[in-house]
Amino acid sequence: MASVASLVEGMLRGETLALARLITLVEREGPEAAEALRLCAPYGGKGYRIGFTGPPGSGKSTLVDAMTARLRQGGKEGAPRVGIVAVDPSSPFTGGALLGDRIRMEQHYADPGVFIRSMGTRGGHGGLPDVTQRVATLLEASGKEYVLLETVGVGQTELDVMEVADTVVVVLVPEAGDMIQTMKAGLMEIADVFVVNKADREGAERLAKEIEGSLRLGHPREGNWMAPVVLAQARTGAGVAEVAAAVAAHRGAMEESGELERRRSKRRTSQFLKTVEQRMSRSLHELIASDGELQAMVERIQRGETDPYSAALQVLGDTSVLRRWIARLEE
Amino acid sequence: MASVASLVEGMLRGETLALARLITLVEREGPEAAEALRLCAPYGGKGYRIGFTGPPGSGKSTLVDAMTARLRQGGKEGAPRVGIVAVDPSSPFTGGALLGDRIRMEQHYADPGVFIRSMGTRGGHGGLPDVTQRVATLLEASGKEYVLLETVGVGQTELDVMEVADTVVVVLVPEAGDMIQTMKAGLMEIADVFVVNKADREGAERLAKEIEGSLRLGHPREGNWMAPVVLAQARTGAGVAEVAAAVAAHRGAMEESGELERRRSKRRTSQFLKTVEQRMSRSLHELIASDGELQAMVERIQRGETDPYSAALQVLGDTSVLRRWIARLEE
Repeated sequence: MASVASLVEGMLRGETLALARLITLVEREGPEAAEALRLCAPYGGKGYRIGFTGPPGSGKSTLVDAMTARLRQGGKEGAPRVGIVAVDPSSPFTGGALLGDRIRMEQHYADPGVFIRSMGTRGGHGGLPDVTQRVATLLEASGKEYVLLETVGVGQTELDVMEVADTVVVVLVPEAGDMIQTMKAGLMEIADVFVVNKADREGAERLAKEIEGSLRLGHPREGNWMAPVVLAQARTGAGVAEVAAAVAAHRGAMEESGELERRRSKRRTSQFLKTVEQRMSRSLHELIASDGELQAMVERIQRGETDPYSAALQVLGDTSVLRRWIARLEE
Repeated sequence: MASVASLVEGMLRGETLALARLITLVEREGPEAAEALRLCAPYGGKGYRIGFTGPPGSGKSTLVDAMTARLRQGGKEGAPRVGIVAVDPSSPFTGGALLGDRIRMEQHYADPGVFIRSMGTRGGHGGLPDVTQRVATLLEASGKEYVLLETVGVGQTELDVMEVADTVVVVLVPEAGDMIQTMKAGLMEIADVFVVNKADREGAERLAKEIEGSLRLGHPREGNWMAPVVLAQARTGAGVAEVAAAVAAHRGAMEESGELERRRSKRRTSQFLKTVEQRMSRSLHELIASDGELQAMVERIQRGETDPYSAALQVLGDTSVLRRWIARLEE
């Protein structure tokens, strides 16, 4: 197995296999992941991250494909390179290609300027947003000017995408009730751009008007940005140019107002805190596994003889346990 | 403001207001939350927790209401007491009553044996599952023999309900595509009982047969439990007795096989670890806020002058920072 440093060198030279291997390392977490991120971080943070979220079946993948094709300009020299991270928190698969991605990869297979990665599990200690964050950093370090993040947006995941993306595109379809579900799922608050996809279907114009009405009633986003609503048919390519223009306008407005730098600054701080916390958490697990006294305490908790909250307070008040914990970090 | 200890005493005497205040404390986290949980924990862990999850609009609330009415037997003396935790991760509201709960509360308002709590935000450091876990502990300590947990199940939340519930009931409706969404959302793997609600609608029998077919193809759950599929109409009460019987059968099978104790034991360990980790995380935030050297480092991270991963590794390798961190815990 190649060393982390040589993988990073390979990745910086543009080797796709090295990038893929580094992503696998980062997904697995562990000490090599930290090393890989440390080496890549100086080259990261430069890509523009566009998040696509919305209910299942809204055509996010098709839109991401169409946006990718547009950005790549048929593979023309100097066209921006694109990394795609497709997150499906409901899938147990990770690291490989899901069914939809195989079809997708066929389209972009011959284009070395596009790299696609699917992630299916919840990620390790930190959950999906952290892993997505890190994979995006690697993609940026490998020279991708755009990172497109695609995630199913019902439940909590769509809130997570905000933590990772510079611009959040919410993709809807004109089915009845979609508006209500959108509001229920909290998508109104996170959308920088709305896309009503499959706009040839009945109700598309009405849904667009409903969204615009709700937006006028709500508070404007940071930097006085009012999310535009774009009608599109990603499958035929109709409206894709308008989506790209809306994203570019949001980017421009955020650069102008300083909001982009604020988002990124907040994101960097959060990455720092999470990395420290996760390492502390891992060393706590290691300590318990190797420390007879703590092991006995955990067994009492498991049997219900000690309640978990009292035990936690006891550990936190015990200097000798804390010192052993820290000693593990220093190793 | 009453002390935590006197609130706990009040709650143990059956005072609803004391319970409500303790739940608010626990939702807010902080040192009083830990104290409340420590005092309540010896009385907790005794209720049976039933989780209800499924897509929006599947009629979970109505089913939870019908199950509650059934358990309460019209408020008969000696009927089990019921606590309900309704979790809507998409709602920004917490601590109060959501629209649906007001209607609901009217039904159970006169019954002191039913306590209903809505939670809308994602929770603090630990997220919703942790907060739900702790609120369930308080409800049990207050003498609720049953805790019913209701959560919108698309995205990640339905996986979280498994961490908290003894029996997971997945509620579906016979709309086309529901089966596919169920599989996509990973609900097949977590259901102990399936309910096809609104079973008067077309396709109910077909959906039930599809689920049964998929279950036969899949792996059996722990303890050889095969999730039954129950047709119901929660609104009229049809099938509710069968849902209750299926939950009771699952409970019996888990008690028999030892799986219930294994689930609970795992849950206690996880509560212990999370409580320690969250306290460590909070003290890290406090340390950064009060420590000039760390504050300067965070500012460099924010400005992009130091990358977050290198900074994290630096902190973790710095004994003096770690000692200051621990010193905060000892205070």
